[in-house]
Amino acid sequence: MTTIDLNADLGESFGRWTLGDDEAMLDVVTSANVACGFHAGDPRGLLRVCELAARRSVVIGAQVGYRDLAGFGRRFIDLDPADLVADVVYQIGALQGLCAAAGTAVRYVKPHGALYNAVVHHRAQAAAVVEAVRRVDASLPVLGLPGSLLLDLAQDAGLATVTEAFVDRGYLADGTLVPRGRDGAVLHDPAAVAARAMRMVVTGEVETVDAVLLRIHAASLCVHGDSPGAVSMATAVRARLEAAGITLAPFVAVPG
Amino acid sequence: MTTIDLNADLGESFGRWTLGDDEAMLDVVTSANVACGFHAGDPRGLLRVCELAARRSVVIGAQVGYRDLAGFGRRFIDLDPADLVADVVYQIGALQGLCAAAGTAVRYVKPHGALYNAVVHHRAQAAAVVEAVRRVDASLPVLGLPGSLLLDLAQDAGLATVTEAFVDRGYLADGTLVPRGRDGAVLHDPAAVAARAMRMVVTGEVETVDAVLLRIHAASLCVHGDSPGAVSMATAVRARLEAAGITLAPFVAVPG
Amino acid sequence: MTTIDLNADLGESFGRWTLGDDEAMLDVVTSANVACGFHAGDPRGLLRVCELAARRSVVIGAQVGYRDLAGFGRRFIDLDPADLVADVVYQIGALQGLCAAAGTAVRYVKPHGALYNAVVHHRAQAAAVVEAVRRVDASLPVLGLPGSLLLDLAQDAGLATVTEAFVDRGYLADGTLVPRGRDGAVLHDPAAVAARAMRMVVTGEVETVDAVLLRIHAASLCVHGDSPGAVSMATAVRARLEAAGITLAPFVAVPG
Amino acid sequence: MTTIDLNADLGESFGRWTLGDDEAMLDVVTSANVACGFHAGDPRGLLRVCELAARRSVVIGAQVGYRDLAGFGRRFIDLDPADLVADVVYQIGALQGLCAAAGTAVRYVKPHGALYNAVVHHRAQAAAVVEAVRRVDASLPVLGLPGSLLLDLAQDAGLATVTEAFVDRGYLADGTLVPRGRDGAVLHDPAAVAARAMRMVVTGEVETVDAVLLRIHAASLCVHGDSPGAVSMATAVRARLEAAGITLAPFVAVPG
Repeated sequence: MTTIDLNADLGESFGRWTLGDDEAMLDVVTSANVACGFHAGDPRGLLRVCELAARRSVVIGAQVGYRDLAGFGRRFIDLDPADLVADVVYQIGALQGLCAAAGTAVRYVKPHGALYNAVVHHRAQAAAVVEAVRRVDASLPVLGLPGSLLLDLAQDAGLATVTEAFVDRGYLADGTLVPRGRDGAVLHDPAAVAARAMRMVVTGEVETVDAVLLRIHAASLCVHGDSPGAVSMATAVRARLEAAGITLAPFVAVPG
Repeated sequence: MTTIDLNADLGESFGRWTLGDDEAMLDVVTSANVACGFHAGDPRGLLRVCELAARRSVVIGAQVGYRDLAGFGRRFIDLDPADLVADVVYQIGALQGLCAAAGTAVRYVKPHGALYNAVVHHRAQAAAVVEAVRRVDASLPVLGLPGSLLLDLAQDAGLATVTEAFVDRGYLADGTLVPRGRDGAVLHDPAAVAARAMRMVVTGEVETVDAVLLRIHAASLCVHGDSPGAVSMATAVRARLEAAGITLAPFVAVPG
Repeated sequence: MTTIDLNADLGESFGRWTLGDDEAMLDVVTSANVACGFHAGDPRGLLRVCELAARRSVVIGAQVGYRDLAGFGRRFIDLDPADLVADVVYQIGALQGLCAAAGTAVRYVKPHGALYNAVVHHRAQAAAVVEAVRRVDASLPVLGLPGSLLLDLAQDAGLATVTEAFVDRGYLADGTLVPRGRDGAVLHDPAAVAARAMRMVVTGEVETVDAVLLRIHAASLCVHGDSPGAVSMATAVRARLEAAGITLAPFVAVPG
Repeated sequence: MTTIDLNADLGESFGRWTLGDDEAMLDVVTSANVACGFHAGDPRGLLRVCELAARRSVVIGAQVGYRDLAGFGRRFIDLDPADLVADVVYQIGALQGLCAAAGTAVRYVKPHGALYNAVVHHRAQAAAVVEAVRRVDASLPVLGLPGSLLLDLAQDAGLATVTEAFVDRGYLADGTLVPRGRDGAVLHDPAAVAARAMRMVVTGEVETVDAVLLRIHAASLCVHGDSPGAVSMATAVRARLEAAGITLAPFVAVPG
């Protein structure tokens, strides 16, 4: 029997500003990458997301990013690795505190936005993220792009690693994502996205923007939570997978 | 044999901006109220302070404050208690993360600046701080002003409480501090401050700005770390107390 | 012939987070209170709002607030008047720069949120706002609540003052607004709001939440731009007023 | 008769955190690059610096930087040029407001830190800074590194440009600065720095870290204001130049 995890970025509102429908998404996904306040997420909103996730037994991961609210963490910042280590530790700790207050816990770490893209190839930043996780809690798995330097270095450091595929993002031939703002970067048709998700799980393949077939191994599928239609897309993906007898379950066991 | 704790506010630099001499202060105090990034403290600087404290077996407390870097947490903010609960949880968690990375732990909580003053009498904010501590880790003691609503409510909620006296701040007859900016708010003479500290410990008395004798019970003495001469003042206090046979030790036991 | 101004708070998005439909609102209002980056508004979004307003000859005012993105400027901050003077000067200047780049100019000043409420009665903060306007450009009128200390002090200082009424906010008997979060604070029915606006303009009356008739003199009507239905409400108000032969025009003349 | 301008970065404190001795530096320099709040500078502190500069007829330039208080603007941020245009416009405008309140004006623009280094070669960011200046006030000169793309593009756009040399920074053979943190990046000996300044002015030469002679044409000399000993170094430079009969004067005329 095939099992797959479905993850989404949540907790990305900030104060008066709402982004996405976290409550609806939490009814669909099995893992929630919750923002930690640096690229998005005010403490009160984050606490609420943690509480909602705990109630549904959705697993929580710390989605760590650059300290850049104005840029939503989507702009590369060339920071000193020692700064990045501490920034990531701080963010994981903050979310651990909120999770404790919500009766749950942080169970994995995933970088966000420009940091996610940087650690695919930027050795110093990838190593900094790994060091941060190792120092806060070496039992936390790291979720990332297959073939990324981040996962390589995490494995070298003895951390568990989990690979993911993006059901609604375009792929380049090297396995990285089409940058936002370019044609084909984001997919919007729920049926097409659901079919793509099926193919990823069943045959381990994805078609790139150049119509090349790419082998992809992913233990988790990522759907985006902040686009209009995010909920219906995630719902379509889940329905399609379940209809095919695939079980949706978190990649880490939930205690209790 | 009399024992007393000596605490100071540390970790209050921010990025390029340095405030106080944390390393020197850590050689003198027994407990460090470490900022958590909302009123002061960048993650890298905070991590370093936690590492330095751990090396000296100085106990670390989370010094939580308003989210107000521009005001250094010294301006009252009339925030919704639910916001304050989450803000305090977030800060404690962040410092717990940094402490974990430094091989130590947060062992108490103390509010900073305008929040410290507010929770002396502001019921909703005092209750919010108590709820935050209770929800993150109900075993953490709360350090505060004797007679403050914060300590009353903390006790009601089953939290351990610890009282403190300020060796270098002027007192009013009601036991609160002379507000900064007013005459007699801050004392600067090391010898006078050391004598004052002795009197606080030995007879439990302090003279107010109006020359009234105030009974004060404190399990910890607070020296300020951010004024010029802070180190020599703290050193004078410590020397005077030790010369009188008083033992300086943290109010919480350090494991190991 | 009766003439009235219609103003709304715009430019309150921030980076990735969108709030309100500024472009649609700019087709309805005659004056735009544009945020200045302290409570909301990133420079790029603000520049775009200024450009859109300039294209429609909508007059721009600087909507100055507390430095509090997390609280959207809706939490009172007890800051030193000298800090507030400089904060307001800074915000007006920043928007003047953006307006210059957009080929327009700041033509009035209006406080936002908790600052708006504070300067109704808080003398030091009201005086600070007045001093800031006077020092940046003493020809800028101040828009505020009739009877507020802000307008009194502005007048004393020789500044032009403009009064406004809120078509979609509940009133208390003393002429202040029902605080957000309380029953009757915000009105949602476009037809009722339009009727209320008519009454404000034609008879100078508004009914309070306690069903008392309040005399109100306003040279401008404020509609909110950030609620769902804001555009249809503003459109309904404008249509109703125009159907009655009332001319909508800014309270300050637009050059050219 | 030779005339040269002496500039320094000022206004780089932030709230409780003090950096440099602005008042003393203003007695030495002829032009002040005043921070604008994005990398450093709170409005109240900036207003005071503008007032102090105005009193001494020191010319004020807007020192614009990345929005990065935690990194002091010293970390490259890969932001969208449209964001950078608006960020720079906003900062110039804010400082113009503060200058107006202080009875003076912004008379030039100089990028700070990582932005300064980026616009030496990063075409999109250099063009964005130029567009920002052009749109706010096309009469403002741009101060920068000789040979930088920034000055080339500024000239192409019809802006006045002014070149500067750094008396206390090491040079590479290509005329750029030795990156901070590397050997020879910052010079500390006042006498050596003063001699270096003399040579820059008299012969137009500077020796690189590799002991190569570099031709350098500079209309302004930059001394740093934030290092310990900054004041004595600037004083030494000024004294040495004046002793040689060189006149220190701003590169833009001060009205009145």
